[in-house]
Parts: sequence; structure tokens; C-alpha cells
Amino acid sequence: MSRRVRIDLAYDGTDFDGWQLQPDRRTVQGVLEAAPGRIDGDRPVRVRGAGRTDAGVHARGQVADARLTTGLDDGAVAHALRGMLPADLRPLRVATVPPGFDARGDARSKTYTYRLDRTLAGDPFRTRHALHWPHGLDRAALGQGLALLPGRRDWSGFAGAACSVDNRVRELTAASYDEPRDDEGLFTFTADGFLNHMVRNLVGTLLAIASGRLPPSRVAEVLERRDRRLAGPTAAPQGLCLERVRYEGEQA
Amino acid sequence: MSRRVRIDLAYDGTDFDGWQLQPDRRTVQGVLEAAPGRIDGDRPVRVRGAGRTDAGVHARGQVADARLTTGLDDGAVAHALRGMLPADLRPLRVATVPPGFDARGDARSKTYTYRLDRTLAGDPFRTRHALHWPHGLDRAALGQGLALLPGRRDWSGFAGAACSVDNRVRELTAASYDEPRDDEGLFTFTADGFLNHMVRNLVGTLLAIASGRLPPSRVAEVLERRDRRLAGPTAAPQGLCLERVRYEGEQA
Repeated sequence: MSRRVRIDLAYDGTDFDGWQLQPDRRTVQGVLEAAPGRIDGDRPVRVRGAGRTDAGVHARGQVADARLTTGLDDGAVAHALRGMLPADLRPLRVATVPPGFDARGDARSKTYTYRLDRTLAGDPFRTRHALHWPHGLDRAALGQGLALLPGRRDWSGFAGAACSVDNRVRELTAASYDEPRDDEGLFTFTADGFLNHMVRNLVGTLLAIASGRLPPSRVAEVLERRDRRLAGPTAAPQGLCLERVRYEGEQA
Repeated sequence: MSRRVRIDLAYDGTDFDGWQLQPDRRTVQGVLEAAPGRIDGDRPVRVRGAGRTDAGVHARGQVADARLTTGLDDGAVAHALRGMLPADLRPLRVATVPPGFDARGDARSKTYTYRLDRTLAGDPFRTRHALHWPHGLDRAALGQGLALLPGRRDWSGFAGAACSVDNRVRELTAASYDEPRDDEGLFTFTADGFLNHMVRNLVGTLLAIASGRLPPSRVAEVLERRDRRLAGPTAAPQGLCLERVRYEGEQA
């Protein structure tokens, strides 16, 4: 008897070379696949993840799936994984799902955040998880840039050079910037999918707009002309976090 | 012309071998002393710190002092330090103080916190700054143990083996445990001074009490008999943080 399980994960991406399995590299997928195999009688277990996060990028709500043959129930599998996985890769929940469940293919939307440390000197407790950005931010210009984003669009102009997909149309349903504390900035983006480097390129462009280096209208221009060279720089990975993946029937 | 400056500091202690200067070790004092020297015409600058934090222990409100001969004003010194110090050691403020100011000798009280990560799986974003403690806590027993602490006492029973001071009498004015969020625990201790390992030994003993492994009355017994062997284990360093140092005339 085998079953498919959904594994919800949180990880600090600092010391991982991203999600995807690579020979001789410490990747999230690589570390993760070694663990259920040990639960499952040392059988190799393939784990699929909803989002292929880059090196240095974090997750508070990554979703993965795997096929297991063990007789252990979900709680016991979760307990075993907690014991086997390192402190920077933690299993939050394990649940048996229908056999056809595909963490990546079935995902309806994903939410990423990008954090700014707004302290003057830089908070030493946030260097791994935020971009230090003590500079002034023109909130009005930033708001104008953000307002141009939501919609179903071709995002080629914001895709990284490594982006290998042909269809670059995605629907972005939310893009916002907030300051939950007076020394923290938080971008939030929700879409039915994201291209390689898309969030970091959006953030780099929005920060250039908020700093007066690019006009807010540049967002529309990058989208229309699909030209990466018109956009701002790629923001550093450590501010980025995959917060949540939503599936059919889950609340927004 | 020389002047004395007070430097308020925050640091992530994870990658430091504690505060105190040691040959061939990366210590807070060592990294710090190299910087003002460069501001001050490559003159060696001695920096004194209020609290000699151990390896792995953090600070959000450490206070240091140094004598400078530079003509730069306080704001320019702060700016220069921000540029020279690494991301895990940040200067928060620089202020000229009376020439006799002694960050350590003049300190009237210090407040340390000790953080617990109360999530079941362990939060990967808090492994460097909290002790993972998913176990049950008997809050009534913990409260009884904490209530026995405040007062002017000989703390020998809670001092580490490396404690070299003769006078071990200190006045502890506050000891509390709170859960600011439902998955975070926070001990807070304020005293006119602390002995080596004192907070970590208090926390280790209080956690043993809260877990039912020691009775609350054990606190009084350790104090009366001044016997370290009766106390609980030394709690791990990463939960500990020097939050604040108070001087004459400063609000509690």
C-alpha cells in the first residue's frame, strides 16, 4: 500500500543552494528527499515542491508532496521528519491527500513577501531575512508603481535570464507595500504563478521608483515592451519568502 | 583634544566568541576596537563594554565607551562606524559623555531576556535567537520559582564555574516570564549586576521546575546552600540577550 502525503514546510534559505536538487549542493529538495526515504525503508523518495525557490530565498509556507509506503500515520511521519530534518528546514504539517495530488501542478496561487529592514544602522537580527533599506521611500510614487501591476499580463520584462518557460502570462491578483512596524517594510505579491526572479525584479524596480531613480510609469513600459533592461536591478534574495500556496477550495 | 563617547550597540552573538578580547578569536570587543582606531588616525582605541556577554549571546542594548581624539562630531562618528562594522555588529547611537564615564563601572542596572521558541517543529527563523522549547510548561510552578528570586542575595549557587568575583551579592529587582505571542516565551531579569552564567543557570533551573523535574522550592535551596550542583543545567546561549543597561538618572 502506498499513499501520497502533502508536507507543509518552513525553511531559512540562507544556507541552501535553493530548492532544486543539484549534485554536491545542499538544496532543500536534496535534504528533504533523504529523510522520507529513511522513514520508508530506505527507499528513494521523490519530493515535489510547489515553488522552486532560489538560493537564499526563504519559505514559511512551502508545500511539497511525496509518495510513501510506510504504515506510519501522518502524525508519526511528521514526528519522524521533525527528528530527522535540520533546524533550518522544518516540517509544519503532514497530511494524506488524494493519490493524484501534485503540489506544483495543483497550486492555484502563491503569495510571496519581500521584507525591508528600515532601521538606520541595520538590525543585526534581520540581516539573513530582510534587505537593509534605510533610504527614504516616496510612498506616493511607490503606490503608483504598484497600482500598475495587478492583472493578467505577459511578465517577460520582469523575468530573469534563466527563465525557461514559453508561456509568460500570469495573473497577479495583489501587489502591496506596508510598514507593519515603523522600522520594517513588507511587499506582498499574490499570483497564480511567478516567473524566475519575477518578484525580486519587481521589488528592485519598485525600490528604484520609490527612490526617484525611475518614474512610476516605467512599470507599464517594462510590461508593454517586455524588456528586462528597462527594469530596475534584481533585489537581493534574503528579503524574499514564499509565504503561502493555495489549492482548490482553500480560502484566499 | 580628546573626548569620551558612549556607543550603544546591537549584535547577533552567533558568530562571535563573546565580548571579551582574545587573541585569534572573533570577539565583539576585538572587532569593535579595530574600527574607532581607523577613525582616530590608526591609533589603538580601547573599548570598554557594560556587559561581558558569552559566546553566542546577543545584545540589543549593549553600551560601550571609548576615548577618541578625532575632530568628527558624534553623528559623523556614528556614520563612519556604520560603514566599518560588519552586519552582525551595529552601532545604534554615539554620544559624547563626561570624560569620567565608565560604561561598565557606572551601570546601575542591566536587563537580560531569554527567549523560547514554543512552536512544535521549531521556527527556522529563530534558531539563532531562541531556545526551542516545545515541551509543556507548568506556569504555576514557574511563577512560584520566579517569585523566590527578587531581592538582594548571594547568587553563588547560580554562578558558573568560571565566575571569578569574590563578592557575589547582587540585587535582582525583576524576574518574570511572559508569552508575548502564543508561540514565544520570554524570561526577563533585571539586576544591578549579574554573575558569569547567572541568567542561563536561572533559566535552566526554572525550565526544570516548569517541567516538573525540580520543585519550585529548589530555587530557595540553591540560594541558601550556595550550591551550583542543586540547580538545573545551564541553558543554551542563543536564547540570551542583553536588552538594556541603565545609568544614573535614566528611567527604569
